[in-house]
Order: sequence, then C-alpha cells, then structure tokens
Amino acid sequence: MTRLWNDPADFADEMIDGFVAANGRYVRRVSGGVARATQTPEGQVAFVTGGGSGHYPAFGGLVGPGLANGAAMGNLFASPSTQQVLSVAKAVENGGGVFLSYGNYAGDVLNFDAAQEQLRAAGIPCQTVTVTDDVSSADKSEIHKRRGIAGDLTVFRIAGAAAERGANLTEVTRLARRANDRTRSFGVAFSGCSLPGADEPLFEVKPGHMAIGLGIHGEPGLGDADIPTADGLAEMLVNRLLEEVPDDVADVRGARVVPVLNGLGSLKYEEMFVVYRRIALLLEENGIVTVDPHVGEYCTSFDMAGTSLTLLWLDDELEDLWDTGVDTPAYRRGSVDTSPLVLASTDADEDDDVIGDADDASRGIAQTIAAGFDIWRATIDENVDELGRLDAIAGDGDHGIGMQRGIHAAQTAARDAAERGAGAATTLARAADAWSDRAGGTSGAIWGAILDTVAKTLGDVGVPEPAALAKGLENAKARVATFGAVPGDKTLVDSLDPFIDTFAELSERQSLADAWRAAAEAATDAAAATADMLPQMGRARAHHERALGTPDPGAHSLALLVTSLNDLFNRKA
Amino acid sequence: MTRLWNDPADFADEMIDGFVAANGRYVRRVSGGVARATQTPEGQVAFVTGGGSGHYPAFGGLVGPGLANGAAMGNLFASPSTQQVLSVAKAVENGGGVFLSYGNYAGDVLNFDAAQEQLRAAGIPCQTVTVTDDVSSADKSEIHKRRGIAGDLTVFRIAGAAAERGANLTEVTRLARRANDRTRSFGVAFSGCSLPGADEPLFEVKPGHMAIGLGIHGEPGLGDADIPTADGLAEMLVNRLLEEVPDDVADVRGARVVPVLNGLGSLKYEEMFVVYRRIALLLEENGIVTVDPHVGEYCTSFDMAGTSLTLLWLDDELEDLWDTGVDTPAYRRGSVDTSPLVLASTDADEDDDVIGDADDASRGIAQTIAAGFDIWRATIDENVDELGRLDAIAGDGDHGIGMQRGIHAAQTAARDAAERGAGAATTLARAADAWSDRAGGTSGAIWGAILDTVAKTLGDVGVPEPAALAKGLENAKARVATFGAVPGDKTLVDSLDPFIDTFAELSERQSLADAWRAAAEAATDAAAATADMLPQMGRARAHHERALGTPDPGAHSLALLVTSLNDLFNRKA
Repeated sequence: MTRLWNDPADFADEMIDGFVAANGRYVRRVSGGVARATQTPEGQVAFVTGGGSGHYPAFGGLVGPGLANGAAMGNLFASPSTQQVLSVAKAVENGGGVFLSYGNYAGDVLNFDAAQEQLRAAGIPCQTVTVTDDVSSADKSEIHKRRGIAGDLTVFRIAGAAAERGANLTEVTRLARRANDRTRSFGVAFSGCSLPGADEPLFEVKPGHMAIGLGIHGEPGLGDADIPTADGLAEMLVNRLLEEVPDDVADVRGARVVPVLNGLGSLKYEEMFVVYRRIALLLEENGIVTVDPHVGEYCTSFDMAGTSLTLLWLDDELEDLWDTGVDTPAYRRGSVDTSPLVLASTDADEDDDVIGDADDASRGIAQTIAAGFDIWRATIDENVDELGRLDAIAGDGDHGIGMQRGIHAAQTAARDAAERGAGAATTLARAADAWSDRAGGTSGAIWGAILDTVAKTLGDVGVPEPAALAKGLENAKARVATFGAVPGDKTLVDSLDPFIDTFAELSERQSLADAWRAAAEAATDAAAATADMLPQMGRARAHHERALGTPDPGAHSLALLVTSLNDLFNRKA
Repeated sequence: MTRLWNDPADFADEMIDGFVAANGRYVRRVSGGVARATQTPEGQVAFVTGGGSGHYPAFGGLVGPGLANGAAMGNLFASPSTQQVLSVAKAVENGGGVFLSYGNYAGDVLNFDAAQEQLRAAGIPCQTVTVTDDVSSADKSEIHKRRGIAGDLTVFRIAGAAAERGANLTEVTRLARRANDRTRSFGVAFSGCSLPGADEPLFEVKPGHMAIGLGIHGEPGLGDADIPTADGLAEMLVNRLLEEVPDDVADVRGARVVPVLNGLGSLKYEEMFVVYRRIALLLEENGIVTVDPHVGEYCTSFDMAGTSLTLLWLDDELEDLWDTGVDTPAYRRGSVDTSPLVLASTDADEDDDVIGDADDASRGIAQTIAAGFDIWRATIDENVDELGRLDAIAGDGDHGIGMQRGIHAAQTAARDAAERGAGAATTLARAADAWSDRAGGTSGAIWGAILDTVAKTLGDVGVPEPAALAKGLENAKARVATFGAVPGDKTLVDSLDPFIDTFAELSERQSLADAWRAAAEAATDAAAATADMLPQMGRARAHHERALGTPDPGAHSLALLVTSLNDLFNRKA
C-alpha cells in the first residue's frame, strides 16, 4: 500500500518535482513531464516515451544519453494527455524528428496518436512503435493487441541506442520494431498495490496463491495457482517464453538473449536472485547464451508484489546496439561521453492567452456553463471514492481521481474564461482543453473531445437554440465513436449514446429542461446496467479487443454528471 | 513477506549463486561471498565489506571498481563467519593490505575483528572502520555504539574512492573514518518483513502508524507515531538530522551535503520522490547546498516498508573523492576505466584435508561425538520454528535458522571425520569449524569457539577422563567471556555458565551421566528464566550496551541441546 502523500490529487505533480530535484543533472522539468538536462547533437532523433506514473523507473527514470530524450508523465496509472506528449516532444525535438514508444494501452495509444498527428501537422516527422511484449494479454495470432510491460526496457534501449548513434527516424523505427518483435515477457503477481489515498488495494490475491499473467496495473491475468518454489516459478516462466520464440529465430540452440527479471515493487532482489539462478541454468540447458542479464526493478507498479521474465532475442544488429552506453537517473550502463547541460529551458511556448470577442447573451450562457462546472466539481468530489471503488472491480481504480483532476481543471478554466468575458463556445472549449490536459488517460481524452465538439456548435454570439446543443451532442457521439469503443463495452459510451439519442429526440418537442431530465434518466438506467456487469467484465480487459474496450465506470460518472445539471436547466427554463 | 524460495536453509547460498549468474561481468564467487571479477592494480588497498544477506544492494551489489573489492555474505540477517571474511579478504588482497568496513552490529564486529586478527597474524596489514550513522540507536555521547544503516553507502563510497585513487591503508582508514564522522541517518518504518519460510513478520507496526528510528532488522526504535503527510515526514527527518550536525561543520549555512533518501524495500520510488521534494526545499531554506542527491534503494531489509534520510556533510577532500567513478552491479556513477576480467579464480586455497592419526579408543569416542551431533541435528530441526519465534520477540527471528545451518554443517563434518577414522579431538574440531563457518552470526562464532576449545582437551588418543571434559568446558566458558557478554544479558551465556559450573562441580563425584543430567537441568532452569525476560528485553537492543548484549534465545537452544544428550551419556555410562 502507498503510505506517504500530501493531497492525493497533487501526488503525481509533487512526485515529478521531487524526481527532478533529486536528478537535476539528468533531467529538467518541462510542461507535461521531463526532458534531458543535457544537450543532444542537432539532427538527432528525439525519442519520447511516457505513460502513467507509478511505474518508476518507467518512464522519467529512463531519460538520458543513450535512452529517451523526454518522458510525458501522466497521473497515477493514467496516460499522459495529448497536450503533455506534444509539449514534451516539442521541448526535445531537435531537427531529427520525433520517435514515440510506450506500452500498448488504450489511453496511451489515444493520446500519443493524437500528439503524433499534431506533430506531423506542424511539419515535424513522427513515428511510433508501441511495446507489446506481454504474452499473456492476447493470443499470438493477435500479437499487436498485447500490452507492454517490462519489455519497455529492451525496446526503449534499442531505440535510444540507435538514436544515440545517429540513425535517422526511419532506422530508429525499424530497429525498435525489430526489438519489439523479438521481445517477450511473462509474469506473475502475489499482491496488489493501493494508490495514494485509496482505502483498498486495486486487487487482492488469495494468500499463498499467485495470479498468472497479471498486468502492471492489476489487469486480470490468465488464472491463479499455488505459489510454487522459486525453482518452480523459474521453470514456469522459462517454459512459457520458450513456447513464444520469435519466428525469425532460426535455432534456439546457440541463440543469444538478454534476460530481464523485473520486480514489480515488493518482491525483492534476494528472491529474484534465487529465481534467476534457476532461470540461468534452464536457459543454458536449452543451449541459449545469456547476454548482459538484468535482475532488478525496471518497470514497477508501486509496491505490487510480482515479477516477470523478459527475453530479448538478439541478432547481430541488436547486440551491437545493446553495447551503447546509457546514463539516466535509474539506469546506467557502460561509458557515456559527458554531455554539457542545457543552459536555458527550451520548454514549449505557452499558449497565447487572449479571449476572443463575444456578446452579452453568449457571456450569460458562459456564466451558466461555469455554474454547471461548479455543480460538476461538487458532484465528482462527492462521488470520487465510489467511482474509484467501482473502477477497482474491473480496472485500476483511478477513474474517480482522474475525473476529479479533469473536472477541477475544467471548472477553474471555465470560471476564469467566463469572468474574463469569454462567450459560450470559448468558455466550454477552454474547459475541454483543461480537462483533457490535466486528467490525461482515456476519460480525459474522451471528455475533452465531447465538450470541445459541443463547444463548436454554441458560438460566442447570441443564445444557441436547443437544436444547436442537440447537434453538438450528436457530433460528439460521432467523434467518440471514432475512438473505437462501441455500446456494450461497459465504457462511457454505454450511457453517452442513450443520453444523446434521447435528448435529440425529445428536445424537438419538449422544453430543454424536460428533454435533459429524460435523457439523464436514460443515461442513469444504462449506467446501472453497466455497473452490474462490471465484475463479470474484468476478465475481458486482458484481451484488449478494442482500443477503448476496457470496462470502467465511465457510464456511471456520465450519468451522475448529466443528472446533476437537471436543476440548472430547470432554473434557466 | 518473502514468497519465493526452495529450501529456506539454502536461500542465502542460492541467492548468491543467482546474483553471480546475473552479474558475472562484475563479480565472481569466492568462498564466503563475492570478489570483483575485474583486476585491480597491484598494491591497491583491498576494501572488504560484508554483513548478513537481505539488505541488497548491500553488500554484494556494491562490489566493483570505485567501491568494494569483495563482500563477505552471511546468511539472512546474520553476520558472515570469521572464515567467510577471512576467505574473501585473502581472495582480494593484492599487496596493499585489507580495509574492512561494515555496519556496527555485534555479530559482525565479532567476526570481522577475529578475521582482522588472523589477517594481521598472517602478516597482512588490516584496518577497520565500522559504520555508526543511525542517530536513533544510541545517544550522541555514545556515538561509537550506534548501528550502521544506509550510511554504509557514503562511508563505503569514500573508502572505495580513496583506494581506487591509490591511497594507502592508513589514508583509506583516515578518510573512511572522516566520512563516518560526517554521516548521520534517521529513519522510520511502516511494516516488517518475513524471512523465507517464516509464518510471521519479524515485527508489526499498527496500521496507520510508523515506528520511529527503527533499525534495518526490526530492532526497536524510539517509539511510534501516526503516519504524517509526506511533507510532515520530510520535516521530521530533516529536523532530527539538523540536531546532529557534526561538530566540525563550521556553519550550516553554506555547508554542502550529499542527501541519501533510502527505501527499505516496499516504500516505493514515487512516494520517496514526493518526500524528497520537501527535503530539498527544507535543506535549501537552511542554506544547505545539496550535492548529487540519491533517492532509491541502497540498503534494504527485504520488503520492509520504511525509509531513512542520510546526510553526508562534505568537506573539500570528501567532495573531491565523491567524484570518483563507480561501476558495480547495483550502483554506477560517472565513468570508470574498463578493467580486464580476472582470468583465473584466485580463491583462497582449500584446507588440506588430511585426517591425523588416532587410536581405536579415541575413534570410538569420535563415533559417539558424531552420534551426539545426529541427536543435535534432530533436536534443532524439531525446534527450529520455536527458536525463530522466540528470537522474533526481541530480535530478528533468525536464531532457529542460524542454529539449523550450523548444526547441519557440524553434523555432516563430524560424521565425515568419524567415518574417515578421525579421533575425538579432530572430529569435534572439524564440527566446530563447520558450525562457525556455515552458520555465521553471533551464535555461529560462539558455538564454534565452545566446541573448538573443548576439542583441545580431548586429544586423539585414548578415552578422555571426565575431568578433561570439565576442564575443556571451563576453558570454553572463559573464552566466551572474552567476547563481552555477561550473565543477565539474556544470551547463551545465561545458561552456558550454570551448565558448566554445575558439571564441573558434580563430575568430580558423580557419574558422567548424572553430572551431565544435573547440569542440563541447571541450564534449562536458567534458560526458562531468560525466555520469560525476552519480551521486556527487546528495547535494550537499540542500545548495544555490550558487544554480545543482544538478547536472543541462545540460552534456550543450549539447554535444549545439552538435555538432548542425556540419553547418550546414559547409554555410554
């Protein structure tokens, strides 16, 4: 369990501050995360990684010469926002283009892909390789759906080494993809972790048992078993990975691999060495040559007790790159030329903060929008624990805290805009940006997209018709659908669609207040059905069948939020 | 809790094997622990550290250029034996003498001091600096009695740097002492760890509470308190250490310190960064300049949840040394010249294994001695859990496992010697050596000394008189007294002395069997009184008033062992 924090909502930010304070000669703080403190030669590919916080040394601890140029650091177990990725990428881009690599999770894919699009739109070449090493998260026939765990280290190291040696973006991408194709991991867990401020762990494993194939956020695995001996575990890990030898490894006998025995937090070094002893013997018995073995903590999950074995199957090209020196806060190998410190911050420039024109009617609507965010903020504050609890049933328990961060940021931005005379569209658009930027993760991206889409139909002049709101909501539904989730996935979509459909139908012939109330009821009914299903849906997470197919209480929080506005619409009516 | 092991009795050995398998380019296995795999220049001081296992990266993880030359690796939380220290020292000695440094614990002092004497006797110059950084373990007026915790890192690093730069033994000693004089640590713990195979943790902290000043084996601290915020903890740690500024720091404002925020195992990086954020601010507010901050795991206690702050107050000389590169399995800084691998093992030579002459009478006694060890082995196997449980009341819970390792080794050695025709003295002496070598810790050293002393009076010819046995036991009593423990310390001495006194008195006028039985009863009575006192004695551990003043169930195990031989003496009578 996590024991030390100030305000849990500030945990990730304060963690980054402390990390930078302790590692000033390696990293500097930039908007959205950290960048190398040292200069890199002009024209070198900028390798940007990132992900949720809680996995140290992934991802900030892996920034430095020979590895990443920057890391976008999201909230606890939540993807960084699109703006975070973009901001870090712009801070480190140095004329050679941007290479993105991170573990394959829905929220990360959503936000990194959006950042990639924006970078390309800005004329900066960008390529991506997602890490998909966890053999237990999808079948071999759907290898691209697998999630990334400790294989991050091997893929990142090859990418960082290639960039360090001056490879261009195409080459870095090819080599990272090759490393990912030749990296496989398999792991087990003995206990879960509790996020700061949470009363309960994300999941529990029966004493004396272990969960097989568990992910690094408590995603369900393939089943459980009695804890074997250390030798027994070594055999299980090696045997499973020997079923997964990459197709282009001609002969296992004589093959050369880098083994990484990764600890998730509380399973400690001594135990891992006892397990590794047997792993080394088993690999040798199979005629496999081990190169530069790693036993330690490379991708953790707070204090979760568990371990995974990763094998990187080398070829000559990869093994040559593997020798490149690395010097980062948490990971150092070989010798690295001393690079001069970056003298001035080259952080991405701040948004210019000019509020556009609006008329009084639209400014009045903006005040109502701000009042709506006041209500939403209170609603989420009241329900944050319950949302976290619901999320922990099938997910990683951070839904409440993620919503809270987003809505606090949105409310502040909406109040600020409305008080400075912004119209309805600007006020809502600024709230949308703030939400997606501060919340990160999947829910931040979706809520940002919904509100931003609706804002576009409101305008900053005059009072919008109910039909404009209905049209905006329908556009939002269509935009969310492009993210890949469909009704029945037990996500926000399950209540978003009934809400919007009902509102569109009724707002043509009823008052705004009545239509809203009926739509909120439809959302609540849909959410209730979803919540009942959450326990059964847990297992589906392992399969990642759709980009946004991860069940969470998003439908429930949407229902809460829209219902909380019933009175506001009544007052206005 | 520890979850992975094979046979708990093999854990430490298998851990070392796995550690070496994973780090072959840094370390090689030598009898008693590990030595650098790379060559060191002739004439360089050989820095040997060591201690119990369970504190990784201390101690084996800190062996390599710029740090230690070798580490004697004891059993779990048990000091390495004298032979282990000696063997590692001989493997790495390279013409510049041996420098010993380790945490100040009774068992370690006993065994390292004995090794130092033997090295000097063999003509190898040897000096020692024990690490005494933990401010909560004794008052400032008795600073030499303090125990060593994460300050190991700063002292070792200065010693290693000095040796690396070619300082001679006197200089290395002076600089290490200076580093120790200027290193202070203070820590807290939130939960204990369980050793492999143990059913219960070594200690427990009430949920929501923390133990203040707790040692790295669960030694009691100064009291407990509610867990504060991360900022609150930072303030507690910094404030306590600012009360302990070394006398020769002229002015706190402008002073330069290396801060080390050390995690004990389950308190993770993210939490420590949040705490460090505030520590950095507090040090800055006090005008203190931080140099090369460390936040991570440098001296752990398995998966114990806790953290400590160490400050090394630099002067110019220490700061200059601090820049030296280090390249070890778990700790790397700066650049290090690549050193060639050691080509052939230069392990200390094996004992020549020739059994001396003996007559049939003495060989008969040797068979009885071996039979006695068979009984002792069964007795300890039966009572290993109970002894561990008793030890956990006031100690670190490893007494049972330590006795078991020692007695298994002794029994094997006795059987081997007896079967190869050894006489009584040789058989018992070999069992004594095996016990102290394999068990390590305080109990291993004491039992080895007792049996070795008794062996000297038995001879390898003829049947020894009862008086010879009594004389041997009295000599053993005198030898154990030189170690520093006195009756009433709640150690083995509490039952050893009544046993020997009673036997000496009665063996003059009663049968051997009767005298032994009465003496065993006296030992049992004394042990019972000792055991009752254990819970109250726990707190005394923090004070280290005597080298062997740490209460443990040694009196209890001695009583068990001598009583178990009653039947053997009856049969022989």
